[in-house]
Amino acid sequence: MTHVVSLLVENHQGVLARIAGLFSGRAYNLESLTVGITTDPSVSRITLVCSGDDNVIEQIKKQLNKLIDVIKLTDLTGLQSVHRELALIKVTVPAEKRGEIFQIADVFRAKVVDVGTEAMVIEVTGAPEKIDDMLTLLSGYTALEVARSGLVSIERGKKIKKAAKGA
Amino acid sequence: MTHVVSLLVENHQGVLARIAGLFSGRAYNLESLTVGITTDPSVSRITLVCSGDDNVIEQIKKQLNKLIDVIKLTDLTGLQSVHRELALIKVTVPAEKRGEIFQIADVFRAKVVDVGTEAMVIEVTGAPEKIDDMLTLLSGYTALEVARSGLVSIERGKKIKKAAKGA
Repeated sequence: MTHVVSLLVENHQGVLARIAGLFSGRAYNLESLTVGITTDPSVSRITLVCSGDDNVIEQIKKQLNKLIDVIKLTDLTGLQSVHRELALIKVTVPAEKRGEIFQIADVFRAKVVDVGTEAMVIEVTGAPEKIDDMLTLLSGYTALEVARSGLVSIERGKKIKKAAKGA
Repeated sequence: MTHVVSLLVENHQGVLARIAGLFSGRAYNLESLTVGITTDPSVSRITLVCSGDDNVIEQIKKQLNKLIDVIKLTDLTGLQSVHRELALIKVTVPAEKRGEIFQIADVFRAKVVDVGTEAMVIEVTGAPEKIDDMLTLLSGYTALEVARSGLVSIERGKKIKKAAKGA
């Protein structure tokens, strides 16, 4: 089963290497990872997507919690949360087919952020499945290049826990 | 100087640990990192933001290029490129102040993706500076929680570049 784990970590040198190393050293399956700053410059938030059976996930969470840089770990799986991904997609299109790309962008509420003589760049945000669908639709066009952010997740509102540092 | 480096890497176990380890081992300054899948399941794209003087950046690029998992490295600095970041922001607001949050979201072309009895979640995409500005504006509200993706970048499509006459 796939789990989304949100970590607040001390913004120390090497924290990312320790977390990534933990996954590779134990051959845990890390599907995606994003690191972003928070409102507290000494704290970063890492969103991890990992998969495995319940035992493996329990192990991963225990190991992560043992890391001294980890301030707080939240397993968002099963919690009410919002999951989003960002993608920039470059597609090569001749001028006469640009309209088709604009139409596809429109359907997916994506934005055309650049039009060149040979290529266009589209920005799209949504659930990963939405981005997958859009890429499938665009795969008919040549020279598809894509940069995706990986999953960014946050627990939905209602009860706000007294925030840890930088939360 | 800050550099944005885009990497295509073999989707092997441990590639992320090797890259993160390279930065921590040599105390290179890694400001942000995103990993996303591409249209080829065996290949991932990593966007790194790193800083240092020209020598350090040259070293980083050389070390990255030495890694067997790195298929292609592009330093987007100085190239025409699109840079975007995604953020999910949770803010605690009483019902009577929700209108203010909707107004701020509107100005930043952000989307309100969740409204709870006590909190709201906003999704915003743009240049990192735009997200910083929005967070500054929202900092007047309580219990701000934020999940940011880090920078996602792609080179712009081919364009007729303006001649750099006398520039």
